[in-house]
Amino acid sequence: MTEIAVTIKTLDEKGVLDDITNLISKNSVNISYAHIFLENNDIGSIYFELENVKDIDGLIKDIKNINSVKSIDIHDSLNDIYGKRVIIFGGGAQVSQVAMGAITEADRHNIRGERISVDTIPLIGEEDIAGAVDALSRLPRIKVLVLAGSLMGGKITEAVKKVKKDKDIIVISLNMPGGVTEVADLIITDPIQAGIMAVMSIADTAKFDIKKLKSKKF
Amino acid sequence: MTEIAVTIKTLDEKGVLDDITNLISKNSVNISYAHIFLENNDIGSIYFELENVKDIDGLIKDIKNINSVKSIDIHDSLNDIYGKRVIIFGGGAQVSQVAMGAITEADRHNIRGERISVDTIPLIGEEDIAGAVDALSRLPRIKVLVLAGSLMGGKITEAVKKVKKDKDIIVISLNMPGGVTEVADLIITDPIQAGIMAVMSIADTAKFDIKKLKSKKF
Repeated sequence: MTEIAVTIKTLDEKGVLDDITNLISKNSVNISYAHIFLENNDIGSIYFELENVKDIDGLIKDIKNINSVKSIDIHDSLNDIYGKRVIIFGGGAQVSQVAMGAITEADRHNIRGERISVDTIPLIGEEDIAGAVDALSRLPRIKVLVLAGSLMGGKITEAVKKVKKDKDIIVISLNMPGGVTEVADLIITDPIQAGIMAVMSIADTAKFDIKKLKSKKF
Repeated sequence: MTEIAVTIKTLDEKGVLDDITNLISKNSVNISYAHIFLENNDIGSIYFELENVKDIDGLIKDIKNINSVKSIDIHDSLNDIYGKRVIIFGGGAQVSQVAMGAITEADRHNIRGERISVDTIPLIGEEDIAGAVDALSRLPRIKVLVLAGSLMGGKITEAVKKVKKDKDIIVISLNMPGGVTEVADLIITDPIQAGIMAVMSIADTAKFDIKKLKSKKF
């Protein structure tokens, strides 16, 4: 089984995605990940990670033959390039401190050949943070979430429970009032340490297993 | 014209994406953004942003009738939730300082109703950074890139030129040796300020127009 990643640039015409998926489906190739959007210049950008490709050259030739297709490129997968994602939500002061810990620790692992990204959004308000947590189930490569606020509960707690059920995500919370600490896998008081441990919990080169911790609060 | 965002959960069966895009295409609905991946439990997660939806209820009913479809949910778009993205690449020390400036500034705009995310990866090496810059053209919602290193040129410069041509991205570089400063829109010496100006350059609530700056280096 061969896995490849391709980007197909197309004219913005109705039915072009349909034509391409049709063709892929006919070749018994499986689309394991896709990402499709319109560029500013009205060029459609279609990124596919494909499994079970038996005849790469044949498939690429067939896709090129579709009228609206302008180009097709083969390249590394987004997972090879940006890797596992640490996500940090909360107030600006705390998010920036957790990010500092996480980026510094990710640097130490990426230098040894891993790929770990640190993605953040400073947000306030129960509804807005709950919405951002909930939408994580629609994003790829998310491995750990750090809740970096001073008071989080209610709908945020419910959203955390749901995303943990839907996806295999580790949740680290700062030590704070509110229900989220009850559903987090780990509670860390120092934001820098929270960022470091978030990265350690998912890094291949770290000797740290979050499941072996006897206490959950530090 | 109605725009909606939907997530469709399906069984991991061949042809299901083909069935769904077929149906959408038949309804003359346009897919403006799609994001498709396999969840850990072998459930396919298909996220679509759709334009030109005339009969939402009818479309949803039709999609639900496809055998492999388990559920379909309507919700806010990823742009409404995570908004514009600031991207920071470079060495850990500098990326973390730029991130601190950017997250703190994004906090000040998000509090007033905007949505700005700050996404980072600490990376070293000409090839690897060039690859990460190049792959930006495959990611959505990227508005500004900050190059946070101490020496960047060669293939990185070429990748920056290419991504600026493909997408409408602002590029800010720290003040450093190497060719990237020649292709950047703005060169900032202080990493905290570089992060702040990256956010200001894309924020709706900031009175700052990068094009009006007489000097490019600060």
